[in-house]
Amino acid sequence: MVVGVDDQTAAPAHQHGYLSHKDDYLKRLRRIEGQARGLQRMVEEEQYCIDILTQVSAMTKALQAVSLGLLEEHMNHCVVDAARAGDEEGRVKVDEAMAAITRLVKS
Amino acid sequence: MVVGVDDQTAAPAHQHGYLSHKDDYLKRLRRIEGQARGLQRMVEEEQYCIDILTQVSAMTKALQAVSLGLLEEHMNHCVVDAARAGDEEGRVKVDEAMAAITRLVKS
Amino acid sequence: MVVGVDDQTAAPAHQHGYLSHKDDYLKRLRRIEGQARGLQRMVEEEQYCIDILTQVSAMTKALQAVSLGLLEEHMNHCVVDAARAGDEEGRVKVDEAMAAITRLVKS
Amino acid sequence: MVVGVDDQTAAPAHQHGYLSHKDDYLKRLRRIEGQARGLQRMVEEEQYCIDILTQVSAMTKALQAVSLGLLEEHMNHCVVDAARAGDEEGRVKVDEAMAAITRLVKS
Repeated sequence: MVVGVDDQTAAPAHQHGYLSHKDDYLKRLRRIEGQARGLQRMVEEEQYCIDILTQVSAMTKALQAVSLGLLEEHMNHCVVDAARAGDEEGRVKVDEAMAAITRLVKS
Repeated sequence: MVVGVDDQTAAPAHQHGYLSHKDDYLKRLRRIEGQARGLQRMVEEEQYCIDILTQVSAMTKALQAVSLGLLEEHMNHCVVDAARAGDEEGRVKVDEAMAAITRLVKS
Repeated sequence: MVVGVDDQTAAPAHQHGYLSHKDDYLKRLRRIEGQARGLQRMVEEEQYCIDILTQVSAMTKALQAVSLGLLEEHMNHCVVDAARAGDEEGRVKVDEAMAAITRLVKS
Repeated sequence: MVVGVDDQTAAPAHQHGYLSHKDDYLKRLRRIEGQARGLQRMVEEEQYCIDILTQVSAMTKALQAVSLGLLEEHMNHCVVDAARAGDEEGRVKVDEAMAAITRLVKS
């Protein structure tokens, strides 16, 4: 069957780097979602502002770790692949990664 | 009734500064919880890493705004009240606020 | 002499909190100035980019520590004094401190 | 002459990315050095703490811009070249860049 032949000869689709750890990222994001619910409970129960701030900092740190993890896998896969594909491809991916890094540094 | 009389004459309990905007904070935290769920959907759907990073940055910014808002109300209420209560009370609250600010700056 | 008498009886002018550690701050800022010169030397000598980035991070950390130190002394003196002087004075100083904290968190 | 022939045929030595803008970086670092001296003057003259904090934030922002500029050129040159040289070379350079980005995000 033609489709089968095509499938066999086609280059594999580009895989996002993070997909090999998809379950790990989902687990971390579910925990972060739980932290957001915990914060609502703290506000509902009128807990002490400094304790709420401590929890917001913990949640921000967890999000930052997710960002750095995603970025590392993006660099190891998408940026490295693009660099090999050609000058223009490499430059486009580096520009895009730098924009993400700048947002990360400033947020 | 004695309890009623006590209630009327008792000094009002110290109020956390953020409580006058409790509903606003709950709304913002629910939106942040929604962003955490949106991120899980993006990972499930195997969306592009840079798009996920953009959403994480938006969520981090929203959390940072919550922190700065809580801190401002904490300073305007708890820290100011403590400063008026005495030297020791003031110093304790400033130390506590500085620890929270340091965590915020470094996270 | 009238001026002399006035001077002796006058309340002491408000002292910025950091002044009791003025020499310490000057020493830290001189070291930071030295780090800026060290970075120029690294660029002149065409050293490796990652090593230069490491030095920039060290310098940024030193500056951040200066900021947090100045802020703590500002809170313990100017903000606490203003809180005691009155509601309006307290609010003005807290607003001003929050603007500085926001710049610190976002930079 | 053999040396000449060798010179002509030899691959050019790897160039750090930032070197094409060496003068620009030196100029920016000299300005940052000047900011460090300006801060010492402010402390000497016992200026207002919040004004000093504003200047520290400006200096931190200038340093951050230098970091992001150096990082971008590092990615466009060293990381891209390493990605092309081989899997191991690429991974080593990405790891090193990620460590620098992590320091940048956390500082």
